[in-house]
Formats: sequence, C-alpha cells, structure tokens
Amino acid sequence: MSDSATEPRARPHRIDLNADLAEGYGRWGFGTDDDLLDVVTSANIACGFHAGDPTVMRRAVSRAVANGVRIGAHVGYPDLAGFGRRPMTIAREELADLVAYQLAALSGIARAEGGEVRYAKPHGALYNTAVHDTEQAEAIVDAVCRIDASLGVMSLPGSVLLESAAARGLSTITEAFADRAYLADGRLAPRSMDGAVIHDPQAVADRVVQVVTRGVVDTLDGGPTAVRPASICVHGDSPGAVSLARRVRSALSAAGVELTSSVDEPVGSTR
Amino acid sequence: MSDSATEPRARPHRIDLNADLAEGYGRWGFGTDDDLLDVVTSANIACGFHAGDPTVMRRAVSRAVANGVRIGAHVGYPDLAGFGRRPMTIAREELADLVAYQLAALSGIARAEGGEVRYAKPHGALYNTAVHDTEQAEAIVDAVCRIDASLGVMSLPGSVLLESAAARGLSTITEAFADRAYLADGRLAPRSMDGAVIHDPQAVADRVVQVVTRGVVDTLDGGPTAVRPASICVHGDSPGAVSLARRVRSALSAAGVELTSSVDEPVGSTR
Amino acid sequence: MSDSATEPRARPHRIDLNADLAEGYGRWGFGTDDDLLDVVTSANIACGFHAGDPTVMRRAVSRAVANGVRIGAHVGYPDLAGFGRRPMTIAREELADLVAYQLAALSGIARAEGGEVRYAKPHGALYNTAVHDTEQAEAIVDAVCRIDASLGVMSLPGSVLLESAAARGLSTITEAFADRAYLADGRLAPRSMDGAVIHDPQAVADRVVQVVTRGVVDTLDGGPTAVRPASICVHGDSPGAVSLARRVRSALSAAGVELTSSVDEPVGSTR
Amino acid sequence: MSDSATEPRARPHRIDLNADLAEGYGRWGFGTDDDLLDVVTSANIACGFHAGDPTVMRRAVSRAVANGVRIGAHVGYPDLAGFGRRPMTIAREELADLVAYQLAALSGIARAEGGEVRYAKPHGALYNTAVHDTEQAEAIVDAVCRIDASLGVMSLPGSVLLESAAARGLSTITEAFADRAYLADGRLAPRSMDGAVIHDPQAVADRVVQVVTRGVVDTLDGGPTAVRPASICVHGDSPGAVSLARRVRSALSAAGVELTSSVDEPVGSTR
Repeated sequence: MSDSATEPRARPHRIDLNADLAEGYGRWGFGTDDDLLDVVTSANIACGFHAGDPTVMRRAVSRAVANGVRIGAHVGYPDLAGFGRRPMTIAREELADLVAYQLAALSGIARAEGGEVRYAKPHGALYNTAVHDTEQAEAIVDAVCRIDASLGVMSLPGSVLLESAAARGLSTITEAFADRAYLADGRLAPRSMDGAVIHDPQAVADRVVQVVTRGVVDTLDGGPTAVRPASICVHGDSPGAVSLARRVRSALSAAGVELTSSVDEPVGSTR
Repeated sequence: MSDSATEPRARPHRIDLNADLAEGYGRWGFGTDDDLLDVVTSANIACGFHAGDPTVMRRAVSRAVANGVRIGAHVGYPDLAGFGRRPMTIAREELADLVAYQLAALSGIARAEGGEVRYAKPHGALYNTAVHDTEQAEAIVDAVCRIDASLGVMSLPGSVLLESAAARGLSTITEAFADRAYLADGRLAPRSMDGAVIHDPQAVADRVVQVVTRGVVDTLDGGPTAVRPASICVHGDSPGAVSLARRVRSALSAAGVELTSSVDEPVGSTR
Repeated sequence: MSDSATEPRARPHRIDLNADLAEGYGRWGFGTDDDLLDVVTSANIACGFHAGDPTVMRRAVSRAVANGVRIGAHVGYPDLAGFGRRPMTIAREELADLVAYQLAALSGIARAEGGEVRYAKPHGALYNTAVHDTEQAEAIVDAVCRIDASLGVMSLPGSVLLESAAARGLSTITEAFADRAYLADGRLAPRSMDGAVIHDPQAVADRVVQVVTRGVVDTLDGGPTAVRPASICVHGDSPGAVSLARRVRSALSAAGVELTSSVDEPVGSTR
Repeated sequence: MSDSATEPRARPHRIDLNADLAEGYGRWGFGTDDDLLDVVTSANIACGFHAGDPTVMRRAVSRAVANGVRIGAHVGYPDLAGFGRRPMTIAREELADLVAYQLAALSGIARAEGGEVRYAKPHGALYNTAVHDTEQAEAIVDAVCRIDASLGVMSLPGSVLLESAAARGLSTITEAFADRAYLADGRLAPRSMDGAVIHDPQAVADRVVQVVTRGVVDTLDGGPTAVRPASICVHGDSPGAVSLARRVRSALSAAGVELTSSVDEPVGSTR
C-alpha cells in the first residue's frame, strides 16, 4: 500500500464489478443470473461441484458472452449439500485434480459458447481456506498452471493464494467486498464483530465509491486505511442483493468511474 | 458392407483395440488400468459421471499419453450408484449439456498431460440407448460438435449414433466386441440368447483374428456374415478380463495384424 | 365408481389435502414449507434422494407434527440434478432397496420428532411410472411391506401401484390433482392437450369443491365423469402455488367440507 | 485403568471382534463382506454416506442377522469420493441431522431383516475428529439420543465421544485396534511414528491375545500399559486383511477367549 494510496489517481477511475453466477442446480436456483449479467463486468461461474449443473453453467456462460461480461471459474469443494461452505481437508494433489477438472469443464463450455475463461476464484470455504492455508492455495495454483497459465487468480489482497499465484508467475486480481467492513490493519472485520457487515444500501454504495475513487476505506477500529482493489464483489443470491448491486453500479457511474473488467493490476502486486 | 468384404485385403491388416479405463472412484477401483494400457491402443476414459474421479482420470490419461495410447472420452449418465447402466430418459438439450461437460473436463485434463482426446464413446445404458434412440444419439453428436468437431464417435456399425454423427460431418469409428456373438443380419446376438457371450478365451481370440483378417464372423443363426470394424472392444474390469485382452492381442500379433489406433475408416461409412 | 357417485353423500363431506414438502436441498429451497403446513392436512416429505436433505426433512417433519399434519414419505429416484423427474429403469430388487432406505430414514426421523410416517407416495417420474409399470409398482409395495405394512400407499385411482398395494393387503389412498383436467374415461388429460392444466385459481377451486361435494368432474372430451378421491393434491413449489392452495382450502371450508387426513377409503378400493 | 488391570481376570475372557462392512457402492466393493461375517461378532455397517448403497447395506445386514453378528451403524461424513476420510467442518445441528438420518435408515433396514442396530460407531475422519472435538462428538450423541437411546457408542477409550455419550446416559463400547501400537500414556501411536502400524500377522495376533487375556500392551516409548477394551477392531478391506482377521480370531480361540458381542462394559466407564 503505497504513499500515494490516498491521493486521487490522475487517469480516470476504473473498476471491475464481480458476482457469483450459475449457483442453481437442477430444479433449484436463485433466479438472479440474468439480472446480474446486466450489472457486473465479471461473472464467477459455478462449475458443478458446490453448485451449477451443466445446463445452468452453459446458459450463464452464453449470456455472459452475449453481454461482454468476463468469465471466471468459481471453483469449489465437492459438496452440493453444503454449497461448498463447509471446510474440507483435501490433500494438495487431490484438490489440484478437483480444481483442474472444474477449470477444464468450464473452459470447454465457454469456448463452445464463443467465450473463454479468464480467471479462477475459489468459492466459499475454499476461498476462506486459501486466504491463509498454503497447501490448499498451492493446489489451486497447481490446477491453474496445469489447465491454463494465462488465467488470473482472484482473491483478497495479501492472501496466501495471491502470493502463491504471483510467485508462480500467474496474474492476480485483488478484490474487495462491497458490504464488508475493514480493520485498521487492512483485513476484513470478522463477521462476529458488530458492524462487520454493512446492511444500509446507501452506506454500501458510498463506501464502494470512496474505495474506488479515493483508495481508502474507513475502519471499525481506527482511521481510514488504504485499499485499492481491482474488483469489487457484490452478492446476487437474492432479489434484494441484485438491487443493491444495481445501486453500487449506479453510484460508481455517477461518480465518473468506468466499469470494466480491464483493470490494470500493478505487476507482481498481490495487495 | 462391400462385395469384397470376405476377401483378404491386400494391404497389411490393422486394428485398434479399445478398453474402458478410469472406472474407479475414490477408494474403489478395479486395479486394472496399468495392465490394460500395455494391451490396448485406445482407452475409453470415464469422465466422472458414471465412474472416474478427477484423480483417477488424470492418472489414466497420464499413462495413456506415456504409452502412446489414443484417448477417448467415455461419457455416461450421471449415475455413480448405477455405474451408468440404468437407462435414463433425459431431454436432448440437457443430455447434450451433460455430455459436453464431460468432454470438456476430460479434454482439458488430457491437454494438461500433454495429450488430447480423439474420440467420444458413450458408456453403458447411454451406449445402448444411442444405438437406436435418435434423441439421445443426436444429443451426443450435439455435444461433440459443440466441444470439438474433430473428435470421432465410436459405436456399433449401423447404429443411429454413427449415422447421426456421419450426417453431421463427424468421423466415425465402428467397433466389434471381442466376446459377443453375431446374428446373420449383422447385429449382436442379444445377451438372452444361448451363446451370445463367448467365454472360452481361445474361441474369443480366434474369432477376433478371423474378423480382422478375413472380415467375417460366424453367426448363431446362419452362416458367416461380413464385419469390418475399425476397433475391437475388450473388457478390463477384472484380472481375468485383462488376461483375455492380452490373449486377443497376442493372437492378433501372431496373425500379422498391426495393432494401431490409426485405422482408416471408409469416409462416410457408419458400418 | 358406483351408481351413487353423482349424488351427494348423506354424511358431511371430508377430504384430505396433500402437498409436497421438504423439497429443498442444502442452500436451495422454495421457502414454502411453513405456509403449506398451515394449508394441507397431509405432507409428502421428500426423503433425500430427489430432494430433501436431513435437516430440511427434520424441520418439515417437526412442523408437521406440531400442526397435526399427517406425514407421508415422498420417495423418489436417486437423482438430485433431475429432481426425480427423469425416468430411470431400475430393477425391482434394487428399487425396492432404494425405497426401503428412504422409508426407513424418514420413519426414524419422524419418530424422533414425536410423529410417524403414515403413507408412502412416489414422486415425479417414479410416480408416473408406477401408475402403469408393474415392476416398479411392485418394488414400491415390496419396500412398504418390508419397512411398515401399516403404511398406506397414495396414487391415482386405477393405477397399477394401488392395485398392487391392495392385492398385497396394504391400504390405499386415491388422490386427484386440483389443477388437472380429466377425460371422459376417468383418466387425467395428458399435459400435451389444450386445457389439461387449469390455471385460473377460481376455476381450480370450483372444480375441487365439485369433486369433493358432488363426486363428479367435467371432462375435456365429454360430459361429467365420477371421481371420488380420498385426497386432493395441491402444489407448493412457488408463492403463487401456496396462494392457490389457500384458495382451494377456503373454498372447501366455505362449502362445508371438513379438511382432515382421516378420510374413509372404501376397503379394497383402488379407485 | 484400575490397579488390577495387569492381573488376569478370574472369569473366562471374552472379547468382541468388530470390522467394517457394506463398504461397497454400486458396482464397486471389496468383496470381503461374506468372509468377514464368519470371523467377527460385530459388524460396522456403512449407511450410504461414505460408502454402502441400500442394496449393499441390506445384504450385509441380512447375513449379519443370519450369522448372529451384532449390527452397528457405521456413520460417516457425506463424502463418497473421499470415502469419509476427508475431515469436514459441519455445524453440530446439521451433523446431528446427518447422523440421525443414517441411523434411522440402517435401523429400519435392520428391522426389516429381522435384526436391530445395537450401536453407533463413527467412520474415518468423523471417527478421528470425534475423539477430540466436542462439537462433533456431541452431534453424534445428539443423533443417537434422538433416534434410539438404547444404542451403545463405540470409540477409543478416553475419547471425547465416549465421555459425551456416558455423560448423556448412553452405554459405551471401548475398542482397540488389532494392528496399532500404543504409547506409554495409553494413546495410539500416531501413524507417522515408526512402528505405529504392526504388519506382521503373528505379532498382531500375539498382541491381541495379550491385550484380551492380560489387559496390557507393550508400548513404543516405555513399558507395558494397561488396556482393557470391550472390542477389538480388525480390518477387512482386502483379502489379506480378512486372512489377518481370521488369524486373530484363531489365536484368541486357542487362548481360551470367548468371542462374543456380549462383553460387560463397566458401567459409566469410557476407558
């Protein structure tokens, strides 16, 4: 986090907006895919292990291609019943195989629809574990290197996953969560803290604008801290979430921010 | 089936030998993959739906590449408990998506191991259904066209699947089963008939040699009939099956037949 | 169907109202269980094979017990991705085992919550197949006889399933669908016919009242025909469906019909 | 561990011998169920979550009943691909529901075959976690209390699981592993230590006899320590394992030990 973090950038502000898609399975779904694809610039597509059957995946990819939305592989644990949110201990080699399979499946489906997968982002408990666990982080990087080393890897700034990815020569995409509060040391406030999740839509939109245009965010336990993510994650698993995502997009546009998946990430930076 | 079907071909005889691999799942397996890869020239690799987890698949692909064995995608119904042997009615679009997902997953894994998938072959109940059912046959062809139209499609001569594949411009690979008896009209004898399955290893080997070198096979209900498959399918799901496969290979070699996956299939022929 | 079918019965009219519950799975659901349990008198609880994880099942059972709603086991094919709606061919012994497992699981959960399973009803493609297919119908009856021969079996009047159940000494529960039209021969009109599904809420409610109070229903291809089901099936897989179910219940109450799961079924009748 | 632990008991020695059964799934299995049922006095039957489909379960239960072998529910994580050996973090309520479902399913199947489940034993990673993790241990106890509080709970002496079970009034069954070495403090030697797993069949048989007849076992890091389990666990997932199990049984019989599942466990003891 450089000294210049709190100064406005000279060039126009740009930010990527990402959300999870294809989170249905068979008869079940949240029904928000189409709406989200009008809001975001990057779509994290479930790959069939924690959610997303082949038909759901193909449809989401097809619309993402039609809308010019960047496609990411949202890879997860093999746990439909737990929606990939239950931590699992899986050996590195085996986990790399599970992730590679998902990357390969979505990549083929994307090419068939005239698109291509551009990044990988772990889902749920795999996301959280790869922030700090070297073995699982390396397994994800193994899989990306094996299937397509041109893919970026998306995670939190400072995560073990992004450090592993960068060390192996992969490009990285840092993200911030639209509705989560920060601590003074730059980490997300744990959900157990009061105020860790911001529920007021206007407050969420205001914070996102501040992060993107000024590179700072207020913290729960101190003054403002610097954050400069390449992407902002919005949720989409309810009609209310979609409306919040729309509000974030509108606020960014009103602030003159360009919404695009083509955000320059400082080379070698994982923060 | 041309007039010359019963005459020896002038050029040296060549045949492909295929078997099912990667039919384990997690802790379970038949333990025959490595042995089979020393015997066959084409490997039908399970893709995770009826059998074959990502680790099993990657290992089988890796060894196939090392052994120069051609890789096929053995696509099946999503039914681990039934091993893909229980007929399922699945609408064409949905089935095409299921098959495309499997083709994509295996293709990516194969490329990661330095190989490539060269053909698709349905497994179990999907194999049997696609022999006569237009909707399911077309779904398989849809998926191949979508994921990689350079793939061949392997099935029985005269099957609806091969006719559909040929009509859509895909190359076809006809196969015969080493241990199955024929009827005078060229069809396989149904398993319910006495003698439909040949159990004597020497008889199996002799018949395969006759099919490959003379293009004819004795039938249960008449005289010899012409068959000229591009590939012979041997089983591998037991140690005894592997030993039978070895015997077939030895008999073919002793008869001067070259074992290779590069067998010319008459263009446009599905028989 | 007796001569008196078109005459009002002397005793007060009673009818059971049933709907499918516990059709969620992990993170997914329709969110209608609680509302439905205020409307129906019998709940068909999914058992984990086509829908319904153990937590969803336990919660639905617990509320059914609290509301005095009769509990049925909604047994289905092992096919989460297809929601049990894809026909599968499963051998009788194996299918009986699958159904017995589901019955056993739900029965134990129901007892743990202070209730008990009182009937079995097949779901989706298994429901449709067991209407006409003897092997699958007998498999369901096998399972019921094995796990608890005091359970009733719910299906369409005249179905092979109810005939098999009655022949084996099980009690039967005939049902009609609130929103489906009939043919003059007493069968449901196939969905492909115009008018097969009735969408107007008032028309649905009026027909149900007519069926229950007068024992007749208008048909698509002739005059009224006699129907005298023990239960009426309403749907619940959308907020709109719940509101329709409420309307049916109100209309029945307004017509003086008692809603109860204790409906006398003529002994030995499967119609 | 009382002072008398190293003295021979006056009454005849008795011990229960348990092994895991029904560990197949669909087409896959180890083929050892029938052999094991001639060797052991208690069978830990998989319940469909980590292994064991309904047909495999029913067959194993049926033979256990025929052989007079005590039936236990071998409950596991919902993870077929990982065979229940991958640690999972599952909240107490949800895990209790998963275990209750498995107990209920097997109990119903057992009753249908004329038998009854008599104890619960966790499998694989759930076994290991419940040795030390209070939340998962309590979840298992919750499920047993809910489904059938007359069931015993089998685990390691001193485990959190047995302490939780005893505290809630359940009976407990302590077990030792035939082929595992101990430390001087009474714990199993971790697998990473040299000598932690004993491979020599005669050494395994000798140790088991010593444990059962003298109540002591040599340790890796000190002198003999007292152990007095109610049951000895033998493995069965390979033909070699079955032959080792037979050897253990023969050695015990030769030493005058009665093999029976009716072993008195000191009331309230979890050691």
